[in-house]
Amino acid sequence: MPVSCVYRGTLAHSTRDTPLQILEDSVLGVDHRGKIAFIEEGQNVESLSQTWGFETSDIVQLGQYEFLMPGMVDTHIHASQYSYSGTALDLPLLDWLNTYTFPVESGYKDLDFARDVYTKVLKRTLRNGTTTACYFATIHTDASLLLGQIADDFGQRALVGKVCMDCNSMVPYYKESLEECKDETLRFIQELLRKEYARVKPVVTPRFAVSCSSSLLHTLGEIAKNNDLHIQSHISENKEEVKLVKQLFPDCRSYTDVYLKHDLLTPKTVMAHGCYLSDEELKIFHERGAAISHCPNSNTSLASGMLNVRNVLNHKVKLGLGTVNFNLILYEFSELNILHSIAWQNKQNTLSLDDQTGNFEVGKDFDALRVNMCVPEGPVDVFPGQGPKVILEKFLNLGDDRNIVEVFVAGRRVVPFPE
Amino acid sequence: MPVSCVYRGTLAHSTRDTPLQILEDSVLGVDHRGKIAFIEEGQNVESLSQTWGFETSDIVQLGQYEFLMPGMVDTHIHASQYSYSGTALDLPLLDWLNTYTFPVESGYKDLDFARDVYTKVLKRTLRNGTTTACYFATIHTDASLLLGQIADDFGQRALVGKVCMDCNSMVPYYKESLEECKDETLRFIQELLRKEYARVKPVVTPRFAVSCSSSLLHTLGEIAKNNDLHIQSHISENKEEVKLVKQLFPDCRSYTDVYLKHDLLTPKTVMAHGCYLSDEELKIFHERGAAISHCPNSNTSLASGMLNVRNVLNHKVKLGLGTVNFNLILYEFSELNILHSIAWQNKQNTLSLDDQTGNFEVGKDFDALRVNMCVPEGPVDVFPGQGPKVILEKFLNLGDDRNIVEVFVAGRRVVPFPE
Ligand SMILES: [Zn+2]
Ligand SMILES: [Zn+2]
Repeated sequence: MPVSCVYRGTLAHSTRDTPLQILEDSVLGVDHRGKIAFIEEGQNVESLSQTWGFETSDIVQLGQYEFLMPGMVDTHIHASQYSYSGTALDLPLLDWLNTYTFPVESGYKDLDFARDVYTKVLKRTLRNGTTTACYFATIHTDASLLLGQIADDFGQRALVGKVCMDCNSMVPYYKESLEECKDETLRFIQELLRKEYARVKPVVTPRFAVSCSSSLLHTLGEIAKNNDLHIQSHISENKEEVKLVKQLFPDCRSYTDVYLKHDLLTPKTVMAHGCYLSDEELKIFHERGAAISHCPNSNTSLASGMLNVRNVLNHKVKLGLGTVNFNLILYEFSELNILHSIAWQNKQNTLSLDDQTGNFEVGKDFDALRVNMCVPEGPVDVFPGQGPKVILEKFLNLGDDRNIVEVFVAGRRVVPFPE
Repeated sequence: MPVSCVYRGTLAHSTRDTPLQILEDSVLGVDHRGKIAFIEEGQNVESLSQTWGFETSDIVQLGQYEFLMPGMVDTHIHASQYSYSGTALDLPLLDWLNTYTFPVESGYKDLDFARDVYTKVLKRTLRNGTTTACYFATIHTDASLLLGQIADDFGQRALVGKVCMDCNSMVPYYKESLEECKDETLRFIQELLRKEYARVKPVVTPRFAVSCSSSLLHTLGEIAKNNDLHIQSHISENKEEVKLVKQLFPDCRSYTDVYLKHDLLTPKTVMAHGCYLSDEELKIFHERGAAISHCPNSNTSLASGMLNVRNVLNHKVKLGLGTVNFNLILYEFSELNILHSIAWQNKQNTLSLDDQTGNFEVGKDFDALRVNMCVPEGPVDVFPGQGPKVILEKFLNLGDDRNIVEVFVAGRRVVPFPE
């Protein structure tokens, strides 16, 4: 099969065995399906060009301060909270939901409003290098379907969730009955699947145990199982919330047990936060193959708590990064102070998509960022003699969307946006 | 006295009594000396124009998503560490100094290198909205004088310190003898003062107690006293360091006592970090009127520790923010999750410059940022109906230099840079 594009220069990614690989002067070919056809040393370029039938003059040569890295994966992001991102950070979780979140989310029954915000969400996340996103929308089926359509239009890989909640909303105009919730979830899933978008799929989305009756949780567990779908929710974000869940589900041993008992902990589950999970609960996560989405900035902002990342990894629980409310996902990395963030992100297969994306291995989709640390009016200065490792560190710690000059999803260039 | 410029629109600042004041439709006049001539409600514009002799057609009208706020004050920044900012974050403090910092700093004996880096430092900090900076340079007098000259050229308000260190460097080519250090410090101060820069002054700068002999500290205390100069250093950043200081100064009761005994704790002193200061030490800071520069990102990056901000404020110790290593000072704010950061920054008079700058009060220098949250290719989206408070929050939490469309120091426009 011939290749459609060949890059030569520095590549940074991680593999199962190597937390961070910086490959200088390498050649990477992308085939017509958007998959990585080969990745080899630059010196092999002549023989590669014969094998794959490309002209060496067609190779895209990366600059001295450029590199390719895998696209970023945001495992927890509330698309519907984008309009007030960076604001409303002055209340603890449960008050915050009723005061800010539910009133705003209720506005998404207006599809024009939804289209405006969701379009901005897609542009913003793609510019920031998020090639895969796992979205919470709102309770509204049509607006959630619209988010899926916009994600497909812009070419992002996305899981989209219509939010389910039939209990404990203090905002009377923002909740559903059990019946509505069940019917609309089924309609959402069927209609989204019927579109046959290549990379946009539904995810079953109970808001969190506080917002859902046992019957609803049970129904959603069944729907996920019958359709082999992803599941996302929240767990153990805040101490008040954990207490409340104990009261609401007296028959369950723990918060984790609530989801376990309702068939909502599977290898395709991602639960956000998990700040107060016990070792026993982490063991259950490990056994079920369920993942945790770590959202450091959100936890700090709402003073919810902090996840003990070390302990989660010690329990071999899959762990991904989430922004929740649109802090640039790069800052989540630098917050963690993990140079090997790329490795960490990709080695752990939070969204169970690792057969398709996550690093530069032959056969995977080419989901990639072309980073240039020497752009006009850029946020970072580079100095003579600074090599690829320093350039990569500067990007992860100080860079921003100005340095992300191109973004690819499955080989398709999605940033800059088409005219 | 006539005014040279008048602005009308939203102003955000803080006063002694009000942590955060958002003044909508206000008018602010700047006189020919760069000082604030008046600040009044918009409805008074006609009578103001008569009193101050300006045409209402000359008023600069701020846009709906624009506001003026005071320039930012970076109370601790190592200009000489700029070339590797965002990198080299993998060692604890004392190893980090000998492995990365001292070898790089030794390069500033080359004035061409110094000029290149320091020019980039000034451009970067001004673009990021830092109108006042308290700089560490290196041990080199001429390069430190050059930093002062470049700061003056670009129009920043700055304290510049030639670093003093005569002990315990593991890098043989980066330290001075006691005599050299004394002579060069005096030469630095005299030559910098002789330039008569309006807003660039020397600051006496022992690196920290570990790097300085008792004789050197004593000499520097005397020099500061005789010339009524500012003093800056580091204190109690890291546990190893605190232990080492106890061994090196067995006659001192505490780290704070080391500086106290050598006359280095004055109302014009700013000490960086202070993560491990005891209540007793904080009391001494309060009594002497000395300030602490809080550097959250640096402390996290080097895993040094965290300052208990609440406890410092409870002891009524002056507290400012420092970036150390060029994280955008905005991110230091958002790290703190303090909406009232502006207030906090300015109410506390860390650098003892509050007669000149810090807020929009009549008679103070006009050190200001013109912020626009609706710029092309900007980092933040705004939505219809979002008012000044939300706009300000979005800037503090999500904004960057793209939103800082103009910067003024003492009434002079310093950003965008003159052609
Ligand atoms: Zn969430
Ligand atoms: Zn420092």
